[in-house]
Amino acid sequence: MDQAHWCCYHWLVLLCACAWSYPQPGYLGREDVRNCSTNPPHLPVTAVNTTIQLAALRQQMKAWNLSAYIIPDTDAHMSEYIGKHDERRAWISGFTGSAGTAVVTMAKAAVWTDSRYWTQAERQMDCNWELHKEVSISSIVTWILAEVPAGGHVGFDPFLFSVDSWEDYNLQLQDSNRQLVSITTNLVDLAWGSERPPVPSQPIYALPEEFTGSTWQEKVSTIRSYMKNHTMAPTGLLLSALDETAWLFNLRSSDIPYNPFFYSYTLLTDSSIRLFVNKSRFSLETLQYLNTMCTSSMCVQLEDYSQIRDSVKAYASGNVTILIGLRYTTYGLYEVIPKEKLVTQAYSPVMLLKAVKNSREQALLKASHVRDAVVVIQYLVWLEKNVPKGTVDEFSGAKHIDELRRNENFSSGPSFETISASGLNAALAHYSPTKDLHRKLSSDEMYLVDSGGQYWDGTTDITRTVHWGTPTAFQKEAYTRVLMGNIDLSRLIFPASTSGRMVEAFARRALWEVGLNYGHGTGHGIGNFFCVHEWPVGFQSNNIAMAKGMFTSIEPGYYQDGEFGVRLEDIALVVEAKTKHPGTYLTFEVVSFVPYDRNLIDVSLLSPEQLQYLNHYYQTIREKVGPELQRRQLLEEFEWLEQHTKPLSAMAPITTSLTSMWVAFPLAILSWTS
Amino acid sequence: MDQAHWCCYHWLVLLCACAWSYPQPGYLGREDVRNCSTNPPHLPVTAVNTTIQLAALRQQMKAWNLSAYIIPDTDAHMSEYIGKHDERRAWISGFTGSAGTAVVTMAKAAVWTDSRYWTQAERQMDCNWELHKEVSISSIVTWILAEVPAGGHVGFDPFLFSVDSWEDYNLQLQDSNRQLVSITTNLVDLAWGSERPPVPSQPIYALPEEFTGSTWQEKVSTIRSYMKNHTMAPTGLLLSALDETAWLFNLRSSDIPYNPFFYSYTLLTDSSIRLFVNKSRFSLETLQYLNTMCTSSMCVQLEDYSQIRDSVKAYASGNVTILIGLRYTTYGLYEVIPKEKLVTQAYSPVMLLKAVKNSREQALLKASHVRDAVVVIQYLVWLEKNVPKGTVDEFSGAKHIDELRRNENFSSGPSFETISASGLNAALAHYSPTKDLHRKLSSDEMYLVDSGGQYWDGTTDITRTVHWGTPTAFQKEAYTRVLMGNIDLSRLIFPASTSGRMVEAFARRALWEVGLNYGHGTGHGIGNFFCVHEWPVGFQSNNIAMAKGMFTSIEPGYYQDGEFGVRLEDIALVVEAKTKHPGTYLTFEVVSFVPYDRNLIDVSLLSPEQLQYLNHYYQTIREKVGPELQRRQLLEEFEWLEQHTKPLSAMAPITTSLTSMWVAFPLAILSWTS
Repeated sequence: MDQAHWCCYHWLVLLCACAWSYPQPGYLGREDVRNCSTNPPHLPVTAVNTTIQLAALRQQMKAWNLSAYIIPDTDAHMSEYIGKHDERRAWISGFTGSAGTAVVTMAKAAVWTDSRYWTQAERQMDCNWELHKEVSISSIVTWILAEVPAGGHVGFDPFLFSVDSWEDYNLQLQDSNRQLVSITTNLVDLAWGSERPPVPSQPIYALPEEFTGSTWQEKVSTIRSYMKNHTMAPTGLLLSALDETAWLFNLRSSDIPYNPFFYSYTLLTDSSIRLFVNKSRFSLETLQYLNTMCTSSMCVQLEDYSQIRDSVKAYASGNVTILIGLRYTTYGLYEVIPKEKLVTQAYSPVMLLKAVKNSREQALLKASHVRDAVVVIQYLVWLEKNVPKGTVDEFSGAKHIDELRRNENFSSGPSFETISASGLNAALAHYSPTKDLHRKLSSDEMYLVDSGGQYWDGTTDITRTVHWGTPTAFQKEAYTRVLMGNIDLSRLIFPASTSGRMVEAFARRALWEVGLNYGHGTGHGIGNFFCVHEWPVGFQSNNIAMAKGMFTSIEPGYYQDGEFGVRLEDIALVVEAKTKHPGTYLTFEVVSFVPYDRNLIDVSLLSPEQLQYLNHYYQTIREKVGPELQRRQLLEEFEWLEQHTKPLSAMAPITTSLTSMWVAFPLAILSWTS
Repeated sequence: MDQAHWCCYHWLVLLCACAWSYPQPGYLGREDVRNCSTNPPHLPVTAVNTTIQLAALRQQMKAWNLSAYIIPDTDAHMSEYIGKHDERRAWISGFTGSAGTAVVTMAKAAVWTDSRYWTQAERQMDCNWELHKEVSISSIVTWILAEVPAGGHVGFDPFLFSVDSWEDYNLQLQDSNRQLVSITTNLVDLAWGSERPPVPSQPIYALPEEFTGSTWQEKVSTIRSYMKNHTMAPTGLLLSALDETAWLFNLRSSDIPYNPFFYSYTLLTDSSIRLFVNKSRFSLETLQYLNTMCTSSMCVQLEDYSQIRDSVKAYASGNVTILIGLRYTTYGLYEVIPKEKLVTQAYSPVMLLKAVKNSREQALLKASHVRDAVVVIQYLVWLEKNVPKGTVDEFSGAKHIDELRRNENFSSGPSFETISASGLNAALAHYSPTKDLHRKLSSDEMYLVDSGGQYWDGTTDITRTVHWGTPTAFQKEAYTRVLMGNIDLSRLIFPASTSGRMVEAFARRALWEVGLNYGHGTGHGIGNFFCVHEWPVGFQSNNIAMAKGMFTSIEPGYYQDGEFGVRLEDIALVVEAKTKHPGTYLTFEVVSFVPYDRNLIDVSLLSPEQLQYLNHYYQTIREKVGPELQRRQLLEEFEWLEQHTKPLSAMAPITTSLTSMWVAFPLAILSWTS
């Protein structure tokens, strides 16, 4: 699944217009979006009347003496996906897109979001709201300075601000005579009242031991060693990201859609383990598993989730130093720790250790990918039979592959909303079909399916693009060049500690060569039954350097607006490369085991090295997935696999790229054959 | 010339040990370095007794009530190379390396420098000095906090601090009860007194019009338009880097070795042009050229160099806003501009415009490269004849190529100290031979020459590596893979606005493939009679995005410690690429015209595309340089050029890389030939 979170869309954002809009010239006369410049304004049926919500919030703002209130799009753990009860910006504005900040003053209300969501915002927001198209904090601050009089107070919930974003707001508002006011009571929640969805309360459970790489006790000991050996030797470590606590204790639940996490914090010290969570969610068995009935350094002390701020504050009053990972800690906790007691780094040691899978975790992730390959192959075979009948649409297709996954061993549902996109819909980066809005699959169109599963042993994520009829030459070229990029990056050998950013262009070169490109990132980390986008591994500028044992997706694509989309995504393990000369070098071992579409590959574009790699990969797929298909007596699928992984040869039509070889090689050939 | 300045050695720096040292275990017993742990200490003959210097500085520190004084390694313009009178750290410490910061307290003195200079520092410093091997500001601050008592004052010259470095020191010292004190009088200069070398005073001259891309009036108008159209519409622009003023007025001098600059600042406003410089250095003719006899908006008002701070302060007191490029402005000027009147960006518009050469500037730079190719070819022919006689050494070789350059039209000497390195010396990244210390060139060793010229039309920089005898298989492989990297990057097609950092790994891939790499950057900008490393163009993380009209070096290398070194450096122009599908794509056009060493190329390693590119490049060299050699009747050199640019063919011995092709291609070949 390609990644919208963090910086993947930075380049898009940079292209955004700076203006804000009610009536967008391009939208004029369209029924499906609002038009606030007519009298009365035109509001589509999809628009939400937010007058009551705004009145309720403004009442709270008045009580707190605020001129403005900032409402971000995240939760108290800087999560990529957020729960229903955290969808505050959606509730107050009507706009449900995953990215966007709202600011409300006594007279105005505005949302800032990027180009992916402009149309959606114009459909969902009523005329209480301005839409701003430049999403930087400095654009928000400029607006605040214009709307809030000197001496005014600007309120925010510090648990919804990363330390970085707080610093940005603070830096830009200081000396402006407007005061940023941190209020731990969320004013939107007060306005929302009893209508606010409840916080999840289903059980939190321990992963069976066979699905874990180490026990939680081993992990705690490793982290404590890390702290002891740290140059600043912090006495405590505060964990805020939900996957940090889930990883540390090998615990899971389902508080957030597609993410097996639960709301929690951990304060791990040299002498105690304090887990902040809703205690009532643990069974007696899990309480025993966590060793909660004691107070020694290897007992887990449970404290109420809501106590985290007070507890950190109390701990920080002692003779201690506290390590935090800045990226996932909110200002709500940062502000209660005195600066001289803070030890900061971008990512906590849990994030860094979790990124590198040990041999057991690697084996588990690989096993889940073999089962997941069976799912995808079953789905492709089913499509091949049913699409020509005209009985499959994007939505029913998505339902079918989700169902296939659910039937797998150790399944815990999909790892994200399946992207099932036919024809021109595949050119939209984050399209998902709905029951009401979808396209029929056809042998005349390309079809892209980007999907993944949550299994107790691993999280999967794979994209394949297919065509059952006769693709155009351009479709074949685009597909083949995306494949070439996937191969070039997958087979790259690079020094240990190289950052992904430095090598991701290898996934683009074959496209660039002919003037094509794609506008999203090239890959993201993935874990053992975790979020499908597992930070901080990947190919973006804020990812950490590649190391042996990391897993990442590799997913170049090409999108022809209004026509078709191609993406070929595999998950790969970072492994040591054996090089001719000694040195610590790395390469990738692809663990997604589904063949590409032969119908879309123009073999003549592939270099001998690419062809050799591809055939070797196909051989691996046969070896890994073939026996599993046979074991399950999925004979049709086995036959399909054999067909689709037959070695490809360079016998295909000779085109430009081959021609250039003939210039150089005929003499060599003669000398070889004679 | 590979680039040590800025971040090229970051990765090395990161590997540095954190400890400081007098007696380094590895050095114990060595005569050539100091040993401060014996009694009496051992000091080599190269060590400088700094007792008197330190006493003089401490006297000044006492007068200013300072507990510590920081002495950076730069000048008031953040220059890469600095003049003799700016070598303050060298004077106070004895250590002459180009990078390193000194801090002196009443009781101690310490230098921080990176691994390139550790041995040199141990040779040059006496036992008054500690050597610290971790060069971050935080390491310096940690030391200051340990050595300076609470309440103590830490002095610094704000003209030797970039805004960034000041912010770093300030952030880390705030709340520490140690006060950073900005003192515009440099205390080392006071201690240095009359021994300090004089500030240069030779004439500053206007470049003849035929060597400029636009008149200074055109440049001033362009910059004023930029300011007017800037979102913040600054009324003034302050230029601090020496090449900014030199570029703007098409003026040159020779204040800094190898750099045709002169000490100056410019304050360009919407209604005035104020040039801060030693006025007495202008001839009447140049004064007229600059239109200095009037005060309208297109007249240049000359003010004394020393008045810059007061003048900026006075200007900033009006109803104005001032644009500065943060990278090249010192804290000495930054601190006198009120924050609300500052408009900042990383690089000034002059830096950004200068980076993109117009068609005249491109033609000028290319012309200088044709003449420079003649120089290098003459040198290579001379070496081929004389090295076997045993009459050439590294130093006499360097002198010879410098001499050849000096004889060229429009020559203004070398653009940096020629790196002429034989055998194992070439593995040292910044080795230059001296009259006393050099190695004889031999047909049994590889030889690397990295050199360049300053010409009125352009600055050049080229590296070739040669072997006149029988290279080892490993030498050939290393050389060929460096060449493959050079070719792969040179022929890359990439989207406009791609940053160099994202594509520089293409210059490394062929080396990485077999476990080899190099530890320096891949290239840097270059200009028309400017510094050989012209910022902000290049392949490092703080370079700006690539754009049509930029020139950059492309210079992969390989260094086998104690044995040999390879570097192949060319200058390339960024040009539009014609792609099959429409889009704004760029590629490189190499403008260095000297063939590589056929004796060191293993053709069998080259891909058909690389071979085709190489032969096309050779054809270009013939066309560009051949006629020039004939015109000058350099017939021996012409003959040599013909020989060395003959098309290479893939007939060479077939090795692994080719073998993999045979597996894939025989059938295709049969179908083609039948």
